[in-house]
Amino acid sequence: MPDGARLTHVDESGAARMVDVSEKDVTARVATATGRVLVSAEVVALLRGEGVPKGDALGVARVAGIMAAKRTPDLVPLCHPLAISGVSVDLDVGDDAVHISATVRTTDRTGVEMEALTAVSVAALTVVDMVKAVDKAAVITDVRVEAKSGGRSGEWTR
Amino acid sequence: MPDGARLTHVDESGAARMVDVSEKDVTARVATATGRVLVSAEVVALLRGEGVPKGDALGVARVAGIMAAKRTPDLVPLCHPLAISGVSVDLDVGDDAVHISATVRTTDRTGVEMEALTAVSVAALTVVDMVKAVDKAAVITDVRVEAKSGGRSGEWTR
Amino acid sequence: MPDGARLTHVDESGAARMVDVSEKDVTARVATATGRVLVSAEVVALLRGEGVPKGDALGVARVAGIMAAKRTPDLVPLCHPLAISGVSVDLDVGDDAVHISATVRTTDRTGVEMEALTAVSVAALTVVDMVKAVDKAAVITDVRVEAKSGGRSGEWTR
Amino acid sequence: MPDGARLTHVDESGAARMVDVSEKDVTARVATATGRVLVSAEVVALLRGEGVPKGDALGVARVAGIMAAKRTPDLVPLCHPLAISGVSVDLDVGDDAVHISATVRTTDRTGVEMEALTAVSVAALTVVDMVKAVDKAAVITDVRVEAKSGGRSGEWTR
Amino acid sequence: MPDGARLTHVDESGAARMVDVSEKDVTARVATATGRVLVSAEVVALLRGEGVPKGDALGVARVAGIMAAKRTPDLVPLCHPLAISGVSVDLDVGDDAVHISATVRTTDRTGVEMEALTAVSVAALTVVDMVKAVDKAAVITDVRVEAKSGGRSGEWTR
Amino acid sequence: MPDGARLTHVDESGAARMVDVSEKDVTARVATATGRVLVSAEVVALLRGEGVPKGDALGVARVAGIMAAKRTPDLVPLCHPLAISGVSVDLDVGDDAVHISATVRTTDRTGVEMEALTAVSVAALTVVDMVKAVDKAAVITDVRVEAKSGGRSGEWTR
Repeated sequence: MPDGARLTHVDESGAARMVDVSEKDVTARVATATGRVLVSAEVVALLRGEGVPKGDALGVARVAGIMAAKRTPDLVPLCHPLAISGVSVDLDVGDDAVHISATVRTTDRTGVEMEALTAVSVAALTVVDMVKAVDKAAVITDVRVEAKSGGRSGEWTR
Repeated sequence: MPDGARLTHVDESGAARMVDVSEKDVTARVATATGRVLVSAEVVALLRGEGVPKGDALGVARVAGIMAAKRTPDLVPLCHPLAISGVSVDLDVGDDAVHISATVRTTDRTGVEMEALTAVSVAALTVVDMVKAVDKAAVITDVRVEAKSGGRSGEWTR
Repeated sequence: MPDGARLTHVDESGAARMVDVSEKDVTARVATATGRVLVSAEVVALLRGEGVPKGDALGVARVAGIMAAKRTPDLVPLCHPLAISGVSVDLDVGDDAVHISATVRTTDRTGVEMEALTAVSVAALTVVDMVKAVDKAAVITDVRVEAKSGGRSGEWTR
Repeated sequence: MPDGARLTHVDESGAARMVDVSEKDVTARVATATGRVLVSAEVVALLRGEGVPKGDALGVARVAGIMAAKRTPDLVPLCHPLAISGVSVDLDVGDDAVHISATVRTTDRTGVEMEALTAVSVAALTVVDMVKAVDKAAVITDVRVEAKSGGRSGEWTR
Repeated sequence: MPDGARLTHVDESGAARMVDVSEKDVTARVATATGRVLVSAEVVALLRGEGVPKGDALGVARVAGIMAAKRTPDLVPLCHPLAISGVSVDLDVGDDAVHISATVRTTDRTGVEMEALTAVSVAALTVVDMVKAVDKAAVITDVRVEAKSGGRSGEWTR
Repeated sequence: MPDGARLTHVDESGAARMVDVSEKDVTARVATATGRVLVSAEVVALLRGEGVPKGDALGVARVAGIMAAKRTPDLVPLCHPLAISGVSVDLDVGDDAVHISATVRTTDRTGVEMEALTAVSVAALTVVDMVKAVDKAAVITDVRVEAKSGGRSGEWTR
């Protein structure tokens, strides 16, 4: 392991802390995360509205994801509160999964990867909640950052 | 698709609603969910405390998961508020992943699968937050219900 | 004024308190509230989807109302936390207003009028937020309880 | 309807999103909203302290309104989190109504109309909660923005 | 140390958890906590309204304490969510301190000592906030449970 | 009492308000607060891990304190929401007490004394919660600001 690699959120004694970012620059930052909810064929049909109104189902998950992005510092203990300046969450029903993508923007001192991941995770949980009466075995998978930009570390793409 | 299969959280016109559970019995209910965070070898070493204090890292994720279980109805729009009577969250560092398991108990009118899944998801997000300075590519995966019991639908195991 | 009429939420010295309801019965209780958001003809056309996709707009307000019902004791200082067992929120676009109706159910020690009113109010605020770029002059009006049942005071209809 | 009029909170496909405001200027912004709670003569007498201590009643509603202004992005799904720099809420007991007025200030990228309206709405809900044992028929009405200033759209008065 | 004495909130491996209370009885429970905020003579005079309106100051602290009691499980990680059935908070201005007392009632499976202590602590923090422009040196002290009753452990008085 | 000394959080009529800080400068600000939880000798032994794993106990209190700092404006009614840029909470087990210290940093328009005091108070409440099965008589004491810097009032040390 490279010298000096360490978990930045714990200090030299091992105690957790919220890292001081006051020296970091206020810059425009963007992050995109994605994830999938694996669901049964029956759920796919219902979400596509075959035979019955699909109604608000995906819309509810989208709203849940957007609201969750704003709650990130309330959920993830060492995250900084951030001035989020935009959030979009997309849900797309594939043949065996609901594909979710979230993009979060800020103009602040830290990146928004955690906000994008939180938006995807909570949108995914909401999908599971809505389909669980039909498919108890739904699985949330592959939740990950796809790209981020802004700040000292600049552009990063998976 | 079987006749009558439908998304219980939307009514016949497609509008989302919180399903009325007042007729359901108050019974002891338990649910267990699991998930994994795929991390680099370097992160595994850090979390195992090789060479540096691993400190609070896993403990922070455990607390985040427990607190998130209580926040489930605040996050997942159509979930009922529930009298949670117990939560445990376990984290185990494997060779290429952190394994997370959460068990939630209630004595109420609905099951606690969503609470268990939310605990796992937020513990996983917290792990990602703590390792992201070392491993930007961490992935949350296989978040799913393993078993539930109690209520009309009785015992269910994946 | 009838003898003994008083504000139950302040004690004899005038101090606010959360009234003790431990002696009240746990019974099924329902309340329905309604309200309207007065909007311009242009907004009515947009919400009806004339010429452009109306999309999620009313669905977002519906979700906001449902989630707000659960947040009532967090917002209204002297409200008791309640085991809400069901919430539905309906929005209907009239010729000069969006009509909102919310019904909340519980099986607990106090009524759910405040939860129903909070659901209507926050759904209304969300409608205003979504139309304000087109109509700065929208007005929330006639937010009121229509009916309640359950508990000692029994059935009440406006 | 004028060309191009649209609901800014839904994209061209109709999906809700939190609009990106990162390009907007950070400027001092103020908004004032008002509303009324129609109450019975008996309630007016109680709130004016005739014969009994009126106590904290209006003070509780004032605090509820101030706190709610800070919770706006938690309640209204597509609102941006904002650095609120000041809030005042006034309540005045008229002959048949409690008159409420809220002024919110910020130095940020979006206006604070929604914060002012939320403060008025939650103060009004709190008034209803406190008088509902005496007057079940209270009505919240005429909740609206009176004036706003700051930002690109400048001064606006109803 | 007596055999078997242990911290109930950590399991045999030292991991924190929310203890399972599903086997405990639902009974009426009450707890009272007290505390003090030591303040300067100048603050005492202001809070007593000598020469200037003391206004809402103590009322704001009372509301903050009541609302905080409801937020206890959101703040104290291993506390159970509880159906609080009543809260009162009293503040009394002494010669060198503000005396605070809170009583919380529930009918549930666990005691409400933490809710009473949280109400006192947040009321105290609110007093400090309101006097800090005049007295930077205010101290919160002697926050403690005075008495509790209900549940298996029965009556306890300090 | 010096002329003009007054409670800044109430206006000339005595009404509470959130003071307008838009004219204050955005500067780096730091505050440190401390406090103690008086506990029995038995608790001291358990927290030091004599004979049994002390496990996460202090770590849970540390996380609770950090998260509470971020919730300050949600708890203390007249506090401004702030862009917190760093939080550390230390807990040290003495011979008859757990000593707690919290330091909070921001780059914003108001100081962070309340955030530091809230972090200490909630960490202390969490300690009490964890030891209460062993020691019902624990007392939170001497919660106070030790030092602050930044802003117009500059450096202040107790």
